[in-house]
Amino acid sequence: MLGGCDVRFHMRRDLEHVRRHGVIVKSHLGDFTLPRVQVFGSTEEMGPADLVIITLKATANGALDALIPPLMDQGTKLLTLQNGFGNEEYLAERWGGDRVLGGACFTCINRTGPGLIEHTAQGQIALGPQTPAGREAAVAASELFKHCGVECAFSESIPAVRWKKLVWNIPFNGLAILGGGIDTEQILADPALHSLVRSLMREIIAVSCSLGYPLPESFIENQIEATETMKAYRPSSMIDFVEDRDVEVEAIWGEPWRRAVAAGAEAGRLEMIYHLIRSAVAGKK
Amino acid sequence: MLGGCDVRFHMRRDLEHVRRHGVIVKSHLGDFTLPRVQVFGSTEEMGPADLVIITLKATANGALDALIPPLMDQGTKLLTLQNGFGNEEYLAERWGGDRVLGGACFTCINRTGPGLIEHTAQGQIALGPQTPAGREAAVAASELFKHCGVECAFSESIPAVRWKKLVWNIPFNGLAILGGGIDTEQILADPALHSLVRSLMREIIAVSCSLGYPLPESFIENQIEATETMKAYRPSSMIDFVEDRDVEVEAIWGEPWRRAVAAGAEAGRLEMIYHLIRSAVAGKK
Repeated sequence: MLGGCDVRFHMRRDLEHVRRHGVIVKSHLGDFTLPRVQVFGSTEEMGPADLVIITLKATANGALDALIPPLMDQGTKLLTLQNGFGNEEYLAERWGGDRVLGGACFTCINRTGPGLIEHTAQGQIALGPQTPAGREAAVAASELFKHCGVECAFSESIPAVRWKKLVWNIPFNGLAILGGGIDTEQILADPALHSLVRSLMREIIAVSCSLGYPLPESFIENQIEATETMKAYRPSSMIDFVEDRDVEVEAIWGEPWRRAVAAGAEAGRLEMIYHLIRSAVAGKK
Repeated sequence: MLGGCDVRFHMRRDLEHVRRHGVIVKSHLGDFTLPRVQVFGSTEEMGPADLVIITLKATANGALDALIPPLMDQGTKLLTLQNGFGNEEYLAERWGGDRVLGGACFTCINRTGPGLIEHTAQGQIALGPQTPAGREAAVAASELFKHCGVECAFSESIPAVRWKKLVWNIPFNGLAILGGGIDTEQILADPALHSLVRSLMREIIAVSCSLGYPLPESFIENQIEATETMKAYRPSSMIDFVEDRDVEVEAIWGEPWRRAVAAGAEAGRLEMIYHLIRSAVAGKK
C-alpha cells in the first residue's frame, strides 16, 4: 500500500532489480526508499485498475494497444503524464475520451540507475479531464496525489497545462540536442542560445495565447530563474538523443508546431527547431 | 593585360605559386589558364588603381585599413563583391560613399588548390553604386565585366542585389554548417532541411519585400532548381566552418537579421539560424 492505495508498477528493464531491492528516490525534498513495491512484467498479471497512470515515452504509444486492455474495467480512468501533444488523443481514440485524464509533471527527474530515481528540482503535477465527463475523476486524482504529498493542481484544460510545460521543453530539450548534448547550465551560459531560449519562449507563449490558453510574458523570467536553480540539468530528450534512444520529436515539437500552424499563429522559430531536430535525429539512424 | 585592362592581383598564400605557374580556372563554361598574371604580395607594390575589386572574406575587413590606401588616387573606385551586409558601409565610412560600388557574385566557385579555381555552376555578377555619384562608375564597371565575357547586370540598388543573393546563402550556407558540414545535395535530400530551405527563403523574400526590394515568390522554385544543377556543392561558409577558419556570421546572418528587426519584419527563422550558427562557431573556438 502506498498512500493508502494498492499501487502496482509495470516495469521492463528494471523489473528484477526492483523486485529484489525496491525503489530508491534521491530527492531534493528528502530521500526515501520503497523497499517492497508490487512490480509486474505484464499488465495481465496486474489486472484491472481504477486509475492507470501512463508514463511511457510518447514514441512508444504503440505498445499501449496491448498493455492497456488487461487493466480495463467499467470505470477505469487513464491518466497520461507523458510529454507534449497527441497522447490524450491516442488514448481517447481507442478507449473513449470520457475515461481520459491528462497532465504534466513540472519536475527534474532522471533515472540514473536500476531502481534509482534522482529528483533534483521542483515537483508539481497539473492535470485535468479530456472531456467534461472526466472532471470528477480528475479532481479525485489530483486529491490523491496531494494526499500522498505530491503538489498537484487540478486544471479545467489539459492543453493549457501542456503549453505551459512546453514553454520550457521546446527550447531547453531542443537546444540541448542541437548543441550536441549540452545541459541547461551550458545553454544559459551561451549568449546566443540564451537569447534563443527567451525568443522561443516568447513565441510559444504567443501561440498559447492565440489558441486561448493565456500565459503572461513574466512567465519567461520565472522559467529562466527556475532553470538556474536546476544547475547542470540534462533534459530527458537530450539524454535520449545522445544515448541513441527514440526522441519524442513529434510530441514535443512536431504536434505543437502543427497546432500553431493550424491556428494561423506565427511559429517560425518552432518550425526551425522542430525540423532541425527531426533532421538531427534522422541523421543518427 | 586582361580584357584590355592592366589587371593586378593581390595574393597572400598563393603568391609564389601563381607567380611561377599562373592561375588555372576549371569552369563549366570552359577551362582556361592565365599563365602569366601580375601578382603582388603588398598593395604598395601595386600602386594606385582606377578600380579596386575587393573579394576578401568579410571577417577580414580590418585588413583593408592598411591594404586600401596605397591603391588610392583621386578617382579610384572601390568595388566590394563580398558576401552579405556591412561591407559597403565599412568602405564608405573610411573612404567616402561616392567611391563605393557593391555587388554580388551568383556563382559556385571553390579554390581547390594553389592557383586552382573550380567554377562549377552559374557565373553572374550584379553590381550598383552606393550613392548616386557612383552611378556612372558602376555602369562602366558592369560594362567592363561584360566586355571580358562575364555576365554582369547593373543594378540601381545594392541592397536589392544583396538580399537576392542572401535568399540562397542564408539557408544553404547555414544549414550546411548546422548539418555538421553537409553539401547542397544532402540538404535537399533531407526532407526536414529541404522544407526549412523553402521556409527560410519565403521569410527572406518577405523581409526583402518589406524593406522595399521586391522579389517574387517564384524565385524560391527558381533557386531550388538552380541548386539541383549544382550537384554536391559545398557552400563556402561550410568549408570555412569545417576547416576551422573564420565564418562570415555577421555579414550573412547577423546584419541581415538586425536589418529585418529594425524594419519590424518577422524574421524568427533567420533569428534562429543566426544564433545557432553563432553558437556553433563559438563552440569551435
